[in-house]
Amino acid sequence: MRALAAILGVGCTKVGEHWERSLLDLAVEACLKALEEAGNPRVRALYVGNAASELLNEQGNLSALLADALALEGVKAVEVRAGDASGSLALHQACLDASLGRDEAVLVCGVEKMTDVMAPEVARVQMLFEDARSTFHSGITVPGLCALLTSLYMDLYGADYEDIVLMAVNDHKNATNNPYAQYPFPITVEAVLNSPLVADPVRLFDTAGIGDGAAALVLGAPEGAKEASDAPVAVLASEVATDKVNLCEREELLGLRSLGLAARRALDRAGVGIEELDFFELHNTTSILGVLSLEALGLAEPGGGVELLREGEVAIGARCPVNTMGGLKGRGHPWGATGVYQAVEAAWQLRGEAGKNQVEGAELGLISNMCGLGSVSCVHVLARWEVAR
Amino acid sequence: MRALAAILGVGCTKVGEHWERSLLDLAVEACLKALEEAGNPRVRALYVGNAASELLNEQGNLSALLADALALEGVKAVEVRAGDASGSLALHQACLDASLGRDEAVLVCGVEKMTDVMAPEVARVQMLFEDARSTFHSGITVPGLCALLTSLYMDLYGADYEDIVLMAVNDHKNATNNPYAQYPFPITVEAVLNSPLVADPVRLFDTAGIGDGAAALVLGAPEGAKEASDAPVAVLASEVATDKVNLCEREELLGLRSLGLAARRALDRAGVGIEELDFFELHNTTSILGVLSLEALGLAEPGGGVELLREGEVAIGARCPVNTMGGLKGRGHPWGATGVYQAVEAAWQLRGEAGKNQVEGAELGLISNMCGLGSVSCVHVLARWEVAR
Repeated sequence: MRALAAILGVGCTKVGEHWERSLLDLAVEACLKALEEAGNPRVRALYVGNAASELLNEQGNLSALLADALALEGVKAVEVRAGDASGSLALHQACLDASLGRDEAVLVCGVEKMTDVMAPEVARVQMLFEDARSTFHSGITVPGLCALLTSLYMDLYGADYEDIVLMAVNDHKNATNNPYAQYPFPITVEAVLNSPLVADPVRLFDTAGIGDGAAALVLGAPEGAKEASDAPVAVLASEVATDKVNLCEREELLGLRSLGLAARRALDRAGVGIEELDFFELHNTTSILGVLSLEALGLAEPGGGVELLREGEVAIGARCPVNTMGGLKGRGHPWGATGVYQAVEAAWQLRGEAGKNQVEGAELGLISNMCGLGSVSCVHVLARWEVAR
Repeated sequence: MRALAAILGVGCTKVGEHWERSLLDLAVEACLKALEEAGNPRVRALYVGNAASELLNEQGNLSALLADALALEGVKAVEVRAGDASGSLALHQACLDASLGRDEAVLVCGVEKMTDVMAPEVARVQMLFEDARSTFHSGITVPGLCALLTSLYMDLYGADYEDIVLMAVNDHKNATNNPYAQYPFPITVEAVLNSPLVADPVRLFDTAGIGDGAAALVLGAPEGAKEASDAPVAVLASEVATDKVNLCEREELLGLRSLGLAARRALDRAGVGIEELDFFELHNTTSILGVLSLEALGLAEPGGGVELLREGEVAIGARCPVNTMGGLKGRGHPWGATGVYQAVEAAWQLRGEAGKNQVEGAELGLISNMCGLGSVSCVHVLARWEVAR
């Protein structure tokens, strides 16, 4: 269980509608927090994850702009792109870079500002991560695609929609104690079922909202991590896998193959079994993706994910706590930032700083971030430093 | 001079107006050529460089789409973004990955399809790589910014425009023998001066055109490169640096600081002096950026770049051959592909396969690729394999 990289500091903004602040303002806030936590080390590389700033904010070239805004003169800076998996992909590249083991730190920032355009434009941009040839021009949306998967799941396994949305209910419950969450209040199954229909059967409260946010991490090489930080967190594995973008061409519509592949590679690299993990930060743009993630990870058989929800096994304190700080539905889902938020929250858990949502004795956590409906998946396994060595 | 990675195969499409082919068609052609040259190795990672496919082609998520189109099932795939430096940034990340030294190959593809939209939209999108706050909303274009630098250079150093555009004339001369070049014909200084004015004093024939193209490389770890390929090419160094995006905030307007920094780091890493290099592939969106590159690299004093041009020192066979296969003006400049084209062409030189444009006994080459006017610069030093060991 040798660490690939060490997390030396974390930071994030509250997810919300930040009308009065720019994309760069948010990124700078998150980065300065993370840098301060890490003791303001010298930074030799900056990785930025963002999904669509040219379209949402009329601004590209974020890596150079952020380097400049942080006064990191001349620093190497790279932007990484994979729709709403951009944050974890940036983290992946940063881990590779940090693992090369030089002295200075590597800074990672995931950022998205989605409220500068109207909601229909957000829906249009989101579809650009799908296959334009097959899907975009048909007029369907990502929640529409999720609705098809939800219907198929219900038909195939005889599942009830009110059980599937327990994923969203769990998110909101955990978000209640997260000061950075966009929706820090509980919801009931009834509230979900009574919320407006987005794409039959998917309801509004079953769908991640539109929000602005930024999250950041400072990484270092494993060597010297203990000197550089009081409480480093170990990245044990960082793996990426892809699947067919066009849903219609997938052999297994409900299989989330890329997630299964990335998770298997990550667990192999980390040398841990899925049953050893203490919590899971999953990618639930709508509840069905969370349910299918439980199954792709092997926490449940195909069709059994909904059982775990019904039996309360995803709650903090139960067998496999999920989205402990609110997940995509509760904390919010600023696309390119989400993967980095997940890592920030996992670091809180592993440092014992998750407050009322602390998973008792958490030593190992898995985070998974996807582009769209799993065309790209990125999985990280993180650990308390003492466990990693 | 230990190699960071080995180039095992290269491929590219002709740069041009590919009306009948899609972005992915071009990328697939380039990748299949590179993979075939490398003996179709098992690929463990794909890196894609692209500047603006969402805006130019209504399609994002290129890494997953290309992985699928190449039947690289489940492969790790990552897209890297930095305007017209995206190709070399993708190469940088791929080199880091390849240097981790596992068996399978790493594939890099730079691709851009710019002719799916009208030219004014291309000019608008190009401005998104600049700082929106200071520049985009003023209505100026990138050639306009280049015109300001050209005027400043002429004023400051008493240089003549007809000497500056010798950079474009040199490009076209070299492109004549490149079957993949967009403009494979010679031009004269008179032709440049008689071409339409784009932004005073910059003329049309002094400006890189709008084109479609893709280029690809197969990389492997240095260990085993000689077994994997008859003629591997060594990547000795790969370095990235940034500068202020907003030109007005730079201390030295004509200094291309990011290029100077990246080049110095790269030469240090490679352990070679600038005078040992046999050729240079430079980033000349307009001629002035090529002239300033000569100076930032230390091949000439500030103000002296134009001397090198006038004395014919940038020609093949002279002291410092530049843009040996046509550069941005002659070969063409499909933004996200350019940095990979430069590496493909450098590999041809170092393998002795540059035909009529062969630089006699070429052993070491430097390529530099920039975003916009140098907000990001990426420099690679490549070498004949025998020289690297």
